[in-house]
Amino acid sequence: MKQEVSAEIITIGDELLYGQVVDTNSAWMGEELGKIGIKVKQITSISDSPDAIEEALDIAKTRAQVILMTGGLGPTKDDLTKHTLTKYFKTHLQLHQPSLDNVVAIFKKYNRPLTVTNQQQAYLPATCTPILNTLGTAPGMLFEENEHIIVSMPGVPFEMKGMMTNDILPYLQAHFQLPEINHKVIQTIGLGESFLADTISDWEDNLPTNLKLAYLPNLSGVRLRLTGVYNGIDDLEDQMMREVGKLSDLIPEYIFGYGEISLEETVGMLLNGRNYTISTAESCTGGLIGHKLTSVPGSSMYYKGGIIAYDNYVKINELGVEQDILDKYGAVSGEVVRQMAEGVRRKMGTDVGIATSGIAGPGGGTPDKPVGTIWIAYSDATQTIAKKLNYNKSRLLNIEYTALQALNLIRQSLPGPVEE
Amino acid sequence: MKQEVSAEIITIGDELLYGQVVDTNSAWMGEELGKIGIKVKQITSISDSPDAIEEALDIAKTRAQVILMTGGLGPTKDDLTKHTLTKYFKTHLQLHQPSLDNVVAIFKKYNRPLTVTNQQQAYLPATCTPILNTLGTAPGMLFEENEHIIVSMPGVPFEMKGMMTNDILPYLQAHFQLPEINHKVIQTIGLGESFLADTISDWEDNLPTNLKLAYLPNLSGVRLRLTGVYNGIDDLEDQMMREVGKLSDLIPEYIFGYGEISLEETVGMLLNGRNYTISTAESCTGGLIGHKLTSVPGSSMYYKGGIIAYDNYVKINELGVEQDILDKYGAVSGEVVRQMAEGVRRKMGTDVGIATSGIAGPGGGTPDKPVGTIWIAYSDATQTIAKKLNYNKSRLLNIEYTALQALNLIRQSLPGPVEE
Repeated sequence: MKQEVSAEIITIGDELLYGQVVDTNSAWMGEELGKIGIKVKQITSISDSPDAIEEALDIAKTRAQVILMTGGLGPTKDDLTKHTLTKYFKTHLQLHQPSLDNVVAIFKKYNRPLTVTNQQQAYLPATCTPILNTLGTAPGMLFEENEHIIVSMPGVPFEMKGMMTNDILPYLQAHFQLPEINHKVIQTIGLGESFLADTISDWEDNLPTNLKLAYLPNLSGVRLRLTGVYNGIDDLEDQMMREVGKLSDLIPEYIFGYGEISLEETVGMLLNGRNYTISTAESCTGGLIGHKLTSVPGSSMYYKGGIIAYDNYVKINELGVEQDILDKYGAVSGEVVRQMAEGVRRKMGTDVGIATSGIAGPGGGTPDKPVGTIWIAYSDATQTIAKKLNYNKSRLLNIEYTALQALNLIRQSLPGPVEE
Repeated sequence: MKQEVSAEIITIGDELLYGQVVDTNSAWMGEELGKIGIKVKQITSISDSPDAIEEALDIAKTRAQVILMTGGLGPTKDDLTKHTLTKYFKTHLQLHQPSLDNVVAIFKKYNRPLTVTNQQQAYLPATCTPILNTLGTAPGMLFEENEHIIVSMPGVPFEMKGMMTNDILPYLQAHFQLPEINHKVIQTIGLGESFLADTISDWEDNLPTNLKLAYLPNLSGVRLRLTGVYNGIDDLEDQMMREVGKLSDLIPEYIFGYGEISLEETVGMLLNGRNYTISTAESCTGGLIGHKLTSVPGSSMYYKGGIIAYDNYVKINELGVEQDILDKYGAVSGEVVRQMAEGVRRKMGTDVGIATSGIAGPGGGTPDKPVGTIWIAYSDATQTIAKKLNYNKSRLLNIEYTALQALNLIRQSLPGPVEE
């Protein structure tokens, strides 16, 4: 018998209320809980105060079976949450030896003297199940009270994530009879959210009722997430892969990957699959394409280097752009980016060259070429392709979008197909 | 008579609970409210449902005088929040002509046909004060009920920010007798949060009781924010400037700016002030320093270009690094980054050259030079300085920190002082 289980998240800390820290923990927890079939009903951020914690707990219990709390466990805050929970559950603190061993080991590793304050972090409410924190000194605590599961974790994101992944999520899956859930992520670029929705609306409208689609737009495009809940009849994985297949046939040119993969990783795989090398000639993007390409581990296999040709002098002297072409068409032109892409490819001896030149703003625009006028070019042994872009964003966004469009141009222009 | 006014923020939307969107609105509102002297007591994120909205409002009114809500006002969600509030305040909808004119103007600007759904957005609860949305189609609503002020705004961050800045914050300041508050931001780099706190603890402990310090660590260092509340006696601005002066004398070498300024903007100002130009020679940072420098508007005044020398072949051919130096010391060495910084300076004809070479990881480490071993160098006409860094982070963080340290090395090494 499957259960509907709902959760509430309580994040503790004045720094959240004063806007010193953006609460990113809740969104991460909400997504992870959703993946195992638990729905978050409310997220509450409260002050570092026992009254606020007790009140939030009382109200949360009326709405949710699972209550996940983060924050207020650090040594400098005097373990406020821990003492409040000890009182709330009418219990007392006792030493948890594995947590003490953990604190001792961490201090030993960093060669620091163990303080009394940190030792006290290993004293936990007697009625809780301690959750070991292998990434920090504050242990987590799990309480079972009638039909409620109440968990307290540190607010440091990577410590919380470690506990959730290793302990809390598996515990919740074992404790409840949750529905079988599956997710498929399809990464797209090149169509805005509403155009994408229009293009795939027939497919989306005809999805089996146990499959739902979410549009998750980000800078580089729209992530599509298909979520399936087992309907008791069809094999869920088969059912979902069939729908992903249909979607892929519908918009093949806009899909750059499946699962959590970035555009720069896709480009890296495409280059590696062809044994190709690449170099960059960047004007308006100022090095961002190089940075994106080299953010991928192992990129030295295919990325050789680049010229940041911000000044026209550099375009001429380093990339071989011709002075008369510059004079005739201007630095922001198809002619110049073609010469830049070809020039860097020749100079660095790579199979592919990519180039950008544009007016990122806020200054530098003219009636002919307003801010946001940008040219990009791709060059390999058989072809050179130039493309004009027009953006109407802030300087930083114009730069960011141009770099992404340049990566996408590589993806679209590489000769293929190659077995990947 | 000054009043203690407290606020509660309610953000509405299933996308927040499922983790599809991180709630950044609340932190921004919390910070802005703090600046005018209003304290946020709780942030609550709830589902797109009338019951959840009514329940959240009822509870919030027991805790706060000001309740700010965002979300649930878009046309696709059938103005859920608006209808719920109309019922909650026992009123009815009526046309607000300025809001209709605004919707009509927006559709005209984008040359789109005006839909009935969008026209309906101009119908607002009769008892509210409408807030014009010049940046979108959904107006805001302000309700006064006994001692409570309840405001509903769209969830789109820039629309919400526009309303807050133009209408809501001024309204709250006029409506309440808020204490006079002032803020000073001091930007530091080079000392971690706890070391910084130790270094300035005497100063901090001796601050007048009406001034408080907040540590706001981010990737590039620690932002210090001094908040002052008028004590009824001293001139607040004078009092705060005196303390900022003392702090500046205490840690001059770690302060790179005052107010909301970035490290790359500071470097740009220092270069401009000296009429200096700069070029970059990047290996492990792969273009990130160039990207940071050129993210500043007007950077073409001082940034000429760079070489991304990822492959050793590029270090030799483009930057004039000597083969025997490379063989003897390896690409990640003080000797090689010195030659890179000097080489790019010569090649690009700039006053300053900056260079990086290191092992960003996760692969490529050796017992001698583990992952995170990085060299950076600064070169100008009178000196070349190389510096070794050791990081123990992920690839992306190793790259990010290296770029920031390189910018900081420029700041520290430029000959000075120059009138800025």
